[in-house]
Amino acid sequence: MSRRRMIYEGKAKILYEGPEPGTLIQYFKDDATAFNAEKKAVLDGKGVLNNRISEFIMQRLAAVGIPNHFIKRLNMREQLIKKVEIIPLEVIVRNVAAGTMSKRLGITEGEALPRAIVEFCYKKDELGDPLVSEEHIAAFGWASPQELDEMISYALRINDFMSGLFAGAGIRLIDFKIEFGRLFEGEMVRTILADEISPDSCRLWDLETNEKLDKDRFRRDMGGVTEAYAEVARRLGIIKESGQVADILDFNNSGK
Amino acid sequence: MSRRRMIYEGKAKILYEGPEPGTLIQYFKDDATAFNAEKKAVLDGKGVLNNRISEFIMQRLAAVGIPNHFIKRLNMREQLIKKVEIIPLEVIVRNVAAGTMSKRLGITEGEALPRAIVEFCYKKDELGDPLVSEEHIAAFGWASPQELDEMISYALRINDFMSGLFAGAGIRLIDFKIEFGRLFEGEMVRTILADEISPDSCRLWDLETNEKLDKDRFRRDMGGVTEAYAEVARRLGIIKESGQVADILDFNNSGK
Ligand SMILES: Nc1ncnc2c1ncn2[C@@H]1O[C@H](COP(=O)(O)OP(=O)(O)O)[C@@H](O)[C@H]1O
Ligand SMILES: Nc1ncnc2c1ncn2[C@@H]1O[C@H](COP(=O)(O)OP(=O)(O)O)[C@@H](O)[C@H]1O
Ligand SMILES: [Mg+2]
Ligand SMILES: [Mg+2]
Repeated sequence: MSRRRMIYEGKAKILYEGPEPGTLIQYFKDDATAFNAEKKAVLDGKGVLNNRISEFIMQRLAAVGIPNHFIKRLNMREQLIKKVEIIPLEVIVRNVAAGTMSKRLGITEGEALPRAIVEFCYKKDELGDPLVSEEHIAAFGWASPQELDEMISYALRINDFMSGLFAGAGIRLIDFKIEFGRLFEGEMVRTILADEISPDSCRLWDLETNEKLDKDRFRRDMGGVTEAYAEVARRLGIIKESGQVADILDFNNSGK
Repeated sequence: MSRRRMIYEGKAKILYEGPEPGTLIQYFKDDATAFNAEKKAVLDGKGVLNNRISEFIMQRLAAVGIPNHFIKRLNMREQLIKKVEIIPLEVIVRNVAAGTMSKRLGITEGEALPRAIVEFCYKKDELGDPLVSEEHIAAFGWASPQELDEMISYALRINDFMSGLFAGAGIRLIDFKIEFGRLFEGEMVRTILADEISPDSCRLWDLETNEKLDKDRFRRDMGGVTEAYAEVARRLGIIKESGQVADILDFNNSGK
């Protein structure tokens, strides 16, 4: 690996300065955290799988006109991305009640929502990423009204597209979290999708059995976490039918 | 007291069937609760003061065109009100960060907000009245889009009016909680202000000293709770300048 400047080390990824101005390298770690980093583990191969899955989804989203930061994958754990100024909001889209929403609003996990619901959490680890409303976002200027509109309409489009993508792979998209950023291009600023889309940031249930194929396996100590992520990658056709986590890791070590 | 049917006993008030259809009697108890009823006390005279203060504010709001449930005061602890179907939302208007907002969003208590912020909490004791966004309200149908618009515009008008009312009494209106209900009149439904407006439901700080004149004195074990409520009533001209809590209680016992 060449020497380069680390920009930021987060809970699941590291950002390095990219080769060109306006680019970054996003490195996917195997670290898993939950409950605002109170629970931690290293899951061998997770980073490799998320790098591939996020690449796959970002490319397909770009193809349907949803602009995002992905440029190209560099190796098994790294991808080149456009540097953005992250809007400090986690945008959550929910189709089915689960997790925090079930707890907060007393809705049984697994109950279909009357319609897709877009939620915003203020991205601030120290505060545990609290849910906020559009009022808070407007009053504190975390996003402009135009950015808010763009995020909501992109979020709903991403939800429709991914619901279809996963349904085609026998998977139900329960909910997911995305982040948006400001891309500065000369005088212009555009709102684009950034960060990652992976089983770390989505709830994915097997369409038939409701088996969880996402980070809830880690949150709830169910085991088989990377196996489930690999299953998602297999079903999306990202890794070959017979592909095991071990193969991917192996490829990782040899095939940089 | 005549015999009559109790409709509901809440944490701070009791509702009885009223003398005419479509009316209720709202009885103000001395019970104080906080932190979702984990903390409880009886504060002699609080109910009497809140009955008077809420009467005073509701009458003045009606006079500026904000429709509300208040009909008339019946005695020291009771008022006749219009029966409504309560919209299951607590509508909170904040001018200055305090309480839950300070904690959730990490804003120092006492910091003026960039503008008035309207928040909604889903009224459900078992869930601790969780903050919700307009998305949740729309998706679960807790209020119609029209009701939501009406509540927001009334809430902001009430905020302006009460900020002025209290400023004239040397008091800063930090935030307050209100409830709205559906008033059925023949074929028509109207959204009107209901419940109460009192130092139980407002944060009120002395303009000069920042002394708290509200329920935070109870929440934070500061003592002098009813004394502070009486001070608010005195400053609003509801009770006479020299009026002490004891006089009011005395009046209460003798002067029904
Ligand atoms: N294109 C981008 N440009 C700049 N920052 C980004 C971009 N995409 C994602 N990020 C940020 O990089 C970090 C990714 O690392 P992660 O481990 O997810 O961090 P965190 O622990 O803050 O969630 C996040 O803070 C995310 O907001
Ligand atoms: N005009 C009205 N018609 C019907 N219900 C009302 C009206 N005004 C207030 N209420 C309801 O009456 C109850 C008042 O009692 P309170 O002690 O505040 O109850 P709670 O413990 O539920 O807050 C509240 O549940 C409130 O929503
Ligand atoms: Mg992250
Ligand atoms: Mg109440």
